[in-house]
Amino acid sequence: MAAPIGFYFDFISPYGWLGAVGIERIAASHGREVDWRPMLLGVAVMQVMGLKPLLDMPLKGDYVRRDVPRTAAFLGLPYKRIDAPMTPLPPARAFLWLKARDPVRAKAFAQAVQAQHFGEGVNATTVDGLAPVARRFGLSGEEYREAVAGAEAKALLKASVDAALATGVFGSPSFVVDGELFWGHDRLDQVDKWLAKGGW
Amino acid sequence: MAAPIGFYFDFISPYGWLGAVGIERIAASHGREVDWRPMLLGVAVMQVMGLKPLLDMPLKGDYVRRDVPRTAAFLGLPYKRIDAPMTPLPPARAFLWLKARDPVRAKAFAQAVQAQHFGEGVNATTVDGLAPVARRFGLSGEEYREAVAGAEAKALLKASVDAALATGVFGSPSFVVDGELFWGHDRLDQVDKWLAKGGW
Repeated sequence: MAAPIGFYFDFISPYGWLGAVGIERIAASHGREVDWRPMLLGVAVMQVMGLKPLLDMPLKGDYVRRDVPRTAAFLGLPYKRIDAPMTPLPPARAFLWLKARDPVRAKAFAQAVQAQHFGEGVNATTVDGLAPVARRFGLSGEEYREAVAGAEAKALLKASVDAALATGVFGSPSFVVDGELFWGHDRLDQVDKWLAKGGW
Repeated sequence: MAAPIGFYFDFISPYGWLGAVGIERIAASHGREVDWRPMLLGVAVMQVMGLKPLLDMPLKGDYVRRDVPRTAAFLGLPYKRIDAPMTPLPPARAFLWLKARDPVRAKAFAQAVQAQHFGEGVNATTVDGLAPVARRFGLSGEEYREAVAGAEAKALLKASVDAALATGVFGSPSFVVDGELFWGHDRLDQVDKWLAKGGW
């Protein structure tokens, strides 16, 4: 059986959300599984590459504010922008904590986080904003505290970030198909063909 | 009659070449003209945005070296990589000098420059490498010197770069369709739809 497609994303990245929706659809059409692997743009882009956050870049920040809703609408996805400062740490840790226990439920949790955050515009990246999603997925208060701030969850996220960097991942979303790295939801047409033909 | 599509590109940008091929095909299918407007990534990206050249970025540089030939092949275009250091100044100036005299011939010149540089892998961005193309397009030795290094050509390029920045252009290729800015050859699917529907 073929290895799962590696899907690398940051929970605060709207392009990561667009990529999540796309890769699941494409993978299913090829009978392939997708393994969701959170990374942190703050580490990859800011620390390793020395760049500013996308939205703070001159020119590019303005463009991205226009491109994201336009692209979501082009793809037929609902999108509401959130302006609050945010960190991906709570959902990334909680996802990996859940994944270590129940990978299927963890993916559904991540999809629910993205649907609330990007689709409904209700911030799901803070500890408070994420709590109702965690409850819906059956986490007790004690489990939730462990999932977003416990030592195991922190270590799982650090390992996930390190593994992404070691794979050469620098952006969200990225996809690894049988060893081949693709960056951007706008490479999904190539991912689709690579899955069908193994190259060209 | 509708205004031409603004096509912004850097002569050393392989994605700019992919965008050039794509936008001419799409524009033709909508009966629209394309106005080629050179910009300089060295000014937009390095000076205004404070970034390093793409190929010098950790992680991203390696990815781009793989992505460009893979994407060209995906699109069915021949591509040969050139490793020499290069500057877009000679072709950008010569193109604008020609465009001020004969816009139709100037576009064919730019396409010939890109075909030689990216398709054949023969550096067409140096004064020496560009000279045979200029001769094919009828420039005398004196005209060529004016075109690549004269005061008029330099002023035309400075104006072109300033106009691109004032339009919000920060990357190559970019497209402006009836006031709407799109960045990247991978937004051509959206450009195509925008030309058909004027939005969505």
